[in-house]
Amino acid sequence: MDEDELLAKGREVQAQLWPQVAKGPGGAFPAAQLAPEFFSYVAKSAFGMLWSRPNLAIRDRSLVTCAQLAALGQAEELKAHLRGALNLGISKEELVEVMMQTAIYAGVPAANAALRAAAEVLNPPE
Amino acid sequence: MDEDELLAKGREVQAQLWPQVAKGPGGAFPAAQLAPEFFSYVAKSAFGMLWSRPNLAIRDRSLVTCAQLAALGQAEELKAHLRGALNLGISKEELVEVMMQTAIYAGVPAANAALRAAAEVLNPPE
Amino acid sequence: MDEDELLAKGREVQAQLWPQVAKGPGGAFPAAQLAPEFFSYVAKSAFGMLWSRPNLAIRDRSLVTCAQLAALGQAEELKAHLRGALNLGISKEELVEVMMQTAIYAGVPAANAALRAAAEVLNPPE
Amino acid sequence: MDEDELLAKGREVQAQLWPQVAKGPGGAFPAAQLAPEFFSYVAKSAFGMLWSRPNLAIRDRSLVTCAQLAALGQAEELKAHLRGALNLGISKEELVEVMMQTAIYAGVPAANAALRAAAEVLNPPE
Amino acid sequence: MDEDELLAKGREVQAQLWPQVAKGPGGAFPAAQLAPEFFSYVAKSAFGMLWSRPNLAIRDRSLVTCAQLAALGQAEELKAHLRGALNLGISKEELVEVMMQTAIYAGVPAANAALRAAAEVLNPPE
Amino acid sequence: MDEDELLAKGREVQAQLWPQVAKGPGGAFPAAQLAPEFFSYVAKSAFGMLWSRPNLAIRDRSLVTCAQLAALGQAEELKAHLRGALNLGISKEELVEVMMQTAIYAGVPAANAALRAAAEVLNPPE
Repeated sequence: MDEDELLAKGREVQAQLWPQVAKGPGGAFPAAQLAPEFFSYVAKSAFGMLWSRPNLAIRDRSLVTCAQLAALGQAEELKAHLRGALNLGISKEELVEVMMQTAIYAGVPAANAALRAAAEVLNPPE
Repeated sequence: MDEDELLAKGREVQAQLWPQVAKGPGGAFPAAQLAPEFFSYVAKSAFGMLWSRPNLAIRDRSLVTCAQLAALGQAEELKAHLRGALNLGISKEELVEVMMQTAIYAGVPAANAALRAAAEVLNPPE
Repeated sequence: MDEDELLAKGREVQAQLWPQVAKGPGGAFPAAQLAPEFFSYVAKSAFGMLWSRPNLAIRDRSLVTCAQLAALGQAEELKAHLRGALNLGISKEELVEVMMQTAIYAGVPAANAALRAAAEVLNPPE
Repeated sequence: MDEDELLAKGREVQAQLWPQVAKGPGGAFPAAQLAPEFFSYVAKSAFGMLWSRPNLAIRDRSLVTCAQLAALGQAEELKAHLRGALNLGISKEELVEVMMQTAIYAGVPAANAALRAAAEVLNPPE
Repeated sequence: MDEDELLAKGREVQAQLWPQVAKGPGGAFPAAQLAPEFFSYVAKSAFGMLWSRPNLAIRDRSLVTCAQLAALGQAEELKAHLRGALNLGISKEELVEVMMQTAIYAGVPAANAALRAAAEVLNPPE
Repeated sequence: MDEDELLAKGREVQAQLWPQVAKGPGGAFPAAQLAPEFFSYVAKSAFGMLWSRPNLAIRDRSLVTCAQLAALGQAEELKAHLRGALNLGISKEELVEVMMQTAIYAGVPAANAALRAAAEVLNPPE
């Protein structure tokens, strides 16, 4: 598979997670202006080479990604992947359980921070 | 629920993950001799209060735990939970995918360390 | 001890750290709306089962908590626990020493971040 | 060398990294008001005792510092040291490569966060 | 104070923590052969400039150091500082409480690792 | 560029770092038996797509990698990359300075651990 095909394969996975983004123009945020090739690298490697592998359902890949981002304290990325998880059909209740369980393995402050981030994505608008 | 019931509920979850351990005498390792009450605390709180909650399948709890331990570089705990995951019916192939994908979110050295730990548990004896 | 008693015991420890909060209605912030049971879990387990144990003075528990939160880069939680430490009678000068010493064990940027957070809580209003 | 000389030596290194700051009054930010002695400690120890050592060019010390701060997720400190790196003659393109390569060793979210911070410092004003 | 005095002051603090080591020849371990100046740097800066400051009792400095090393997963350094804490009169029971409480802030695996390290230092020989 | 070309390009970079390994049979260690595709993924993505980019000298990529691995506490990977750095012509003295300077940004215990690992690679056999 050549790099254009890897990119297309990666974009296809990303479109399952974030259908709205995939349709948009993309690339306008400051980091993408600074290093546009980084984001095509991520699409080709992370999404085109790993997320698209067989042997693990994409729903499970999404769930474990949310869990890792919560454990690592990566709040920005976590919010994006929680949106992706909802788009793949994972329930809000399941995601809250993952955030809560983070307290055991990464500590209560990490779980608190994950729930703060999750509240921005998962709380129903009133 | 009183503390004895929480402990029993936690032990029940632990027995699903590690049936062999649950049958053994337990408590003989050095940290357990130093702080025996810590391990009943973990059984009551982590397993009795969180793992036993509804809304997320125990198989999913196990999968996300392996993912978090890999991301956090906790190799000892990871080996124990990989054994637990196998006991719950998660396949070796699924677990290898989770370890590989850790490279995206926690870096290649974390994934390498996780695969080194996993090789001790998942490689078939020859 | 049953879960209601654990909760009451945990709330009692929390009231020593944060008397103002204990008197308020509580539970109105977004993460608490998303996962109210997480916060009663923390009260029962962290405060009811660990902070309330004998063998270490509550003043020492507070001091080591501030030290760990500074080392782990958990600025939000650090600010709350610095307020708690002041309420328990630990001096501002002692807390500043703990933040400074963090530079040795977690690096200068972690100490800087801890002092930035501490300045919000400890600097006298002019 | 006595402590005043260590301080002077440290300030000299800092002035190479941040000539503008070295000329200013300094010390007005909240953390410096809370713990002024911490910042003279850092000048004496980190800059006076380590950065000023022979055997590694100051340009290399700056480059590896940016790399470590990106890997550790210390965005505030990273922005200051990216400015210092530019002042020492390291190119914007070299710095972007270091941030991108962080994805391998600390994960894609760490590299993303580093690029977000770098965009504030390195993006040309329009 | 000149650097020789800082070194002497740092060595004095180290001798309170580790009287046996202070009397020995020192410097024979591999890292000290590779970088002998690093260890005099640490004695001068960490111990001579920070640990020897007023405003926080040395017993409290020792306690918070053990707490931070447990939270950061630095098992080698933790064992050395647990020995130092015992030499300063902190009880084994207090140290076990600190290790247990680490589970709240850094997660159960970090507390487990700290207790494993502590068991090597604190368990009474039979 | 197709995946075989990416792999060849990555292997070429790896051969500059580790000429001995590149000539050997490879792939015999346990993690490689468990997940052989992970190691070709790393060769293609990390080495074929990032390390082989222009704009930053390979000597600088090696230096910042050693710095990041020291800061992250990845001792196994650090030892491999210190060997690579020597093969690229970086001096033992430069590498020791990088390890020492790690104390500022990641703390003294991280620098200690890095020097312990480095002593295995850099100490001349007697």
